[in-house]
Amino acid sequence: MGRLCRRRLVGRGIALAILLCCGGMVMAPAGGEEPLPSWHDSPARTAILEFVEWTTTPGSPDFLEPAARIAVFDNDGTLWPETPLPFQAQFVVDELKRLEGDHPEWKENPAITAALSGDVTGVLRSGPGQGMMLLEATHAGMTVDEFNDRVRRWLDTARHPVWKRPYSDLAYQPMLEVLDLLRDRGFTPYIVSGGGADFMRVWAEEVYGIPPSQVIGSYGKVRYELRDDRPVLVKEGGIELIDDREGKPVGIHRFIGRRPVACFGNSDGDQAMLEWTTIEHEPAFGLIVHHTDAVRESAYDADPKGTGKLVTALEAAPRRGWVVVDMARDWKVVFKPVDGAPQR
Amino acid sequence: MGRLCRRRLVGRGIALAILLCCGGMVMAPAGGEEPLPSWHDSPARTAILEFVEWTTTPGSPDFLEPAARIAVFDNDGTLWPETPLPFQAQFVVDELKRLEGDHPEWKENPAITAALSGDVTGVLRSGPGQGMMLLEATHAGMTVDEFNDRVRRWLDTARHPVWKRPYSDLAYQPMLEVLDLLRDRGFTPYIVSGGGADFMRVWAEEVYGIPPSQVIGSYGKVRYELRDDRPVLVKEGGIELIDDREGKPVGIHRFIGRRPVACFGNSDGDQAMLEWTTIEHEPAFGLIVHHTDAVRESAYDADPKGTGKLVTALEAAPRRGWVVVDMARDWKVVFKPVDGAPQR
Repeated sequence: MGRLCRRRLVGRGIALAILLCCGGMVMAPAGGEEPLPSWHDSPARTAILEFVEWTTTPGSPDFLEPAARIAVFDNDGTLWPETPLPFQAQFVVDELKRLEGDHPEWKENPAITAALSGDVTGVLRSGPGQGMMLLEATHAGMTVDEFNDRVRRWLDTARHPVWKRPYSDLAYQPMLEVLDLLRDRGFTPYIVSGGGADFMRVWAEEVYGIPPSQVIGSYGKVRYELRDDRPVLVKEGGIELIDDREGKPVGIHRFIGRRPVACFGNSDGDQAMLEWTTIEHEPAFGLIVHHTDAVRESAYDADPKGTGKLVTALEAAPRRGWVVVDMARDWKVVFKPVDGAPQR
Repeated sequence: MGRLCRRRLVGRGIALAILLCCGGMVMAPAGGEEPLPSWHDSPARTAILEFVEWTTTPGSPDFLEPAARIAVFDNDGTLWPETPLPFQAQFVVDELKRLEGDHPEWKENPAITAALSGDVTGVLRSGPGQGMMLLEATHAGMTVDEFNDRVRRWLDTARHPVWKRPYSDLAYQPMLEVLDLLRDRGFTPYIVSGGGADFMRVWAEEVYGIPPSQVIGSYGKVRYELRDDRPVLVKEGGIELIDDREGKPVGIHRFIGRRPVACFGNSDGDQAMLEWTTIEHEPAFGLIVHHTDAVRESAYDADPKGTGKLVTALEAAPRRGWVVVDMARDWKVVFKPVDGAPQR
């Protein structure tokens, strides 16, 4: 439950309590099924259900018109994993391997040879210029349609090195249920990710049910031209928006044009959009997926000496009223079960 | 009727003819009312109705799933006028006048003094730098909320110099009916305009029923920051996308992520998005609003020695199969009638 909602509950407690009791707290199952079945009964699950109930029940003091029911989700680490590499970085490595035979000049390029030898993390850390060079080698100099085909082919053939499944099978089952719940109650979910918009749009609809127009990500320059009287869009490279950290509220403004009321993230890169969603804005809801599950997934985010991905946002969470999900304790399963395989 | 649809009709003529006859050609009125009532019975009206019928009737060879029913509309000159000045340019002049008392330094600025003396067109023509300077003086250095308030105040108080009505009353009635028809049949309309996205989003929902997330326009840099622990977005100026000419397909790709199937424009600035919508893409529909009505509106667009706004696109229209609307002949009224006023 967000800070703002909690404060409001105290203020309007009685009316709301009556309303919620009459409405059948916690949420009458729609089709006889409990919502969020992959979530343990926990404060995080209750907070999600209460927020949805309060904002979509006519007569509730927190009722929101459907047009205002905008929810934003980070992708990597929030809707699917980002270990051992963000999946788009794995796509870069796999594409470099697939294409190196056609590019003898890459042998002279230390960043590409390092990435090919497996040290893509080292390359990405060596500075934005080196990472950009890897991106341009695999994401630019082709039409949008050609790029889409490459991503599609990769998704159809690549398998995750740890979980041995197609990447598109690795969405977090509990988060898919949050998406379904929100859609059922008239919310419009958007992805707001540092990942490439063009990369995500190829699979976001089939994996999450989120259409291209609701996928906001980083993007580079694109050029329109008529080629032999056929219109094409060419990916030129460069970066026009880095949709991360302070860039996330900017992307939200640019694409959606109104403030969201619910925000789901997992790292300090999501802190600005959590702030933009929840501070002095009621009703609003913020949630952080905390990677605590070294057995079923990874525990990597909150150690400043480790990846240090989730430090300031976790520290701010109690003050801001953001819900923190403990993956190990709060989720019954992490991934969608595969037939015959043990659940994890 | 677009070239592509016409060709397809020839190929699949019999099945389609039967389907359309059984469906009640031209379009069974939904609630007892004829669609497009402000349109004279004309080839343009028929083409619009046929395209909608063919793409939304189950079983039609041109049937489109609702997700594919994306329609893009230019704004200035397509959905409302752009004479004697584009309305956003009039907003700039009115804002300069309102604010000049607070800016003694503007007296030293030749572009601003020229605009204040009424020659904003001259300033805009003198080069992009001068026009940008006027834009930054009135559109930057404030939060998004402050800018929205300025546009709102202007809309509430300003009157068009010719038609003496609020600008928000000047949408073209026949085009409002096209928007309604498309929405009734499951299309999602987007504005794709060279005008400022932030400027249009303030009023596009009330004037056209188009929400902010479906308004694509030019935009500048925006910065996110916490001010005294309150999140704000600051309009910094500059231009990140000029959503005109070849920029329109780029904007469409960036925001919508798929090709539209219907495109409505009025100038050479819309030619690239008409191409992107219709060339080698079936079914698809392109339409140009040709300003031929010097009595009720303006006749200004097709004279290369005049504004020269509509030259190459008009020349390409027959070859591309784009429908050309003759405003003087095809539209019964131009604007929404005012109570008691004669229709025009």
